[in-house]
Amino acid sequence: MIKDDEDSIRGLVTFTEYQTITTSKRYDILDITDRVEEVRKRARLGDGFILVSTMHITASIFVNDHEQGLWQDIMTWLEDLAPRRPEYKHHLTGEDNADAHLKRMLLGHQVLVPVTNAKLDLGTWERVHYGEVDGRRAKRVLFKAVGAREH
Amino acid sequence: MIKDDEDSIRGLVTFTEYQTITTSKRYDILDITDRVEEVRKRARLGDGFILVSTMHITASIFVNDHEQGLWQDIMTWLEDLAPRRPEYKHHLTGEDNADAHLKRMLLGHQVLVPVTNAKLDLGTWERVHYGEVDGRRAKRVLFKAVGAREH
Amino acid sequence: MIKDDEDSIRGLVTFTEYQTITTSKRYDILDITDRVEEVRKRARLGDGFILVSTMHITASIFVNDHEQGLWQDIMTWLEDLAPRRPEYKHHLTGEDNADAHLKRMLLGHQVLVPVTNAKLDLGTWERVHYGEVDGRRAKRVLFKAVGAREH
Repeated sequence: MIKDDEDSIRGLVTFTEYQTITTSKRYDILDITDRVEEVRKRARLGDGFILVSTMHITASIFVNDHEQGLWQDIMTWLEDLAPRRPEYKHHLTGEDNADAHLKRMLLGHQVLVPVTNAKLDLGTWERVHYGEVDGRRAKRVLFKAVGAREH
Repeated sequence: MIKDDEDSIRGLVTFTEYQTITTSKRYDILDITDRVEEVRKRARLGDGFILVSTMHITASIFVNDHEQGLWQDIMTWLEDLAPRRPEYKHHLTGEDNADAHLKRMLLGHQVLVPVTNAKLDLGTWERVHYGEVDGRRAKRVLFKAVGAREH
Repeated sequence: MIKDDEDSIRGLVTFTEYQTITTSKRYDILDITDRVEEVRKRARLGDGFILVSTMHITASIFVNDHEQGLWQDIMTWLEDLAPRRPEYKHHLTGEDNADAHLKRMLLGHQVLVPVTNAKLDLGTWERVHYGEVDGRRAKRVLFKAVGAREH
C-alpha cells in the first residue's frame, strides 16, 4: 500500500500495489483476475477504477476469455503479425526481442477495471490476463485503485 | 444509476450505467458518442473521466472518424489480419468465433472519455464507436463516470 | 489549466491541459514523457492518473522503449499491417489517409499514466510516446490529471 486517504469525506481512495510475475516460458498467458479482486479488497474500493498496467515494455495486460485453446490462438496470431526474426533495427543495440515490443502493442499494456458496489464490474466472460512475450525473468505489474471507499 | 454520492464536499461523482446493444449483423459499427454525453448529463459530471467498456469479449469500443467508407475499410482490414476460418484451437470447444476475439483485440475493448467543463472533451473528428464482431445478440456496455460534480 | 479544485478536503484534483504538436514528417515518433511530468507538477497531483490522449484520429499515444531503431521497426511494421495505398473506401470522400486511421488503431490513442508519491509511476524502460501517422500539421494532445493533491 502506498497511500490510503482516511480523512476526506466519503474518502477518495488512492491505493497502489506492485506484484512480480515470472513465467517459465518466453511466451505465456496468465489469468490474473483474482489478483485484481484481492487488490480491490485491500484498497477497500467501493466504486471507481483499478488500473492494471505492466511496468515492462515486453509484457501486456488484456481482457479476454479464460480458454486455453484461445490463448494458443492468440500466441500463434501474434507470431503471424509480429514474427520473431533477426532483421529488426532494434537488434543493432544487442537486443533480440523487437518482436516482443510489437506483440505487446497488439495486446495492449494496461486495462482499467471498473469497480461497482465493491465488486469488479466485469461481464460474464471477461477475465484480466497477463500476456508475457519475453519471459523467464521477473516483471512488475502495477495495480492502482482510485475512487470512492467501500461503505 | 448505481451510486451517486451527494454528501462530499464538491462531490466526488461515481456513476455507473449499463446499456444493451443488439446489432442485426454479425459485424457492425455504431457511433455511440451521443450515449456517452447522455450518461455525462445523468451523472452530472463536471470534470473527470467516463469509462466506456464493453462487457463482452467479442465486441469493442474505439475512437475514430464517423465515416461509413472508413468503417468498411476497418472491417475489411480486420478480416485481413484476423480472418474468420475453422482452424482455430478455440473452436475445439464448440465455438466458431475465435476470429472475433482477435478482431476485438485490434480494436480495443474500452475507451476513457475525458470530461471538462461539463462537456465531453473530444477533438473535432473524435467519435466513440461500438464495434461488433460477433453480433445478432444482446450485449452490454458499461459507462462509468468518475470525477468532480458539475457546478 | 481548466479547473483546479481548492476547497475539498484533501482535494480531489482535476486538471486539464492541451499541447500542440507539429511534426515535419508524415510519420514520426516523439518521446513526450517529460511533458507528462511537467503537467503532473502543474496539477500538483500526488496520487492518481494522468490521461494522455490524442485529440486527432490519425495520431496515437503509446508506451514503449525510447530507442530509435525500435521506432523505425514500429513504422515499418505499421506499413506492413496497414499499408498506404489508394484503394480504401475512405478515399472516396477525397481523403488519402485511411492507412493512418488503421495504423493509429494498432498503436492506440490514449494512455493512462499512474502517479504515486508525486511521481510518474513508470517502469525503468517505460516512456510515453506520441506516434504521428499523418503529420505536417498542428495536432492537439489532451492531458488530464485526476486524483489526490500532492501534500
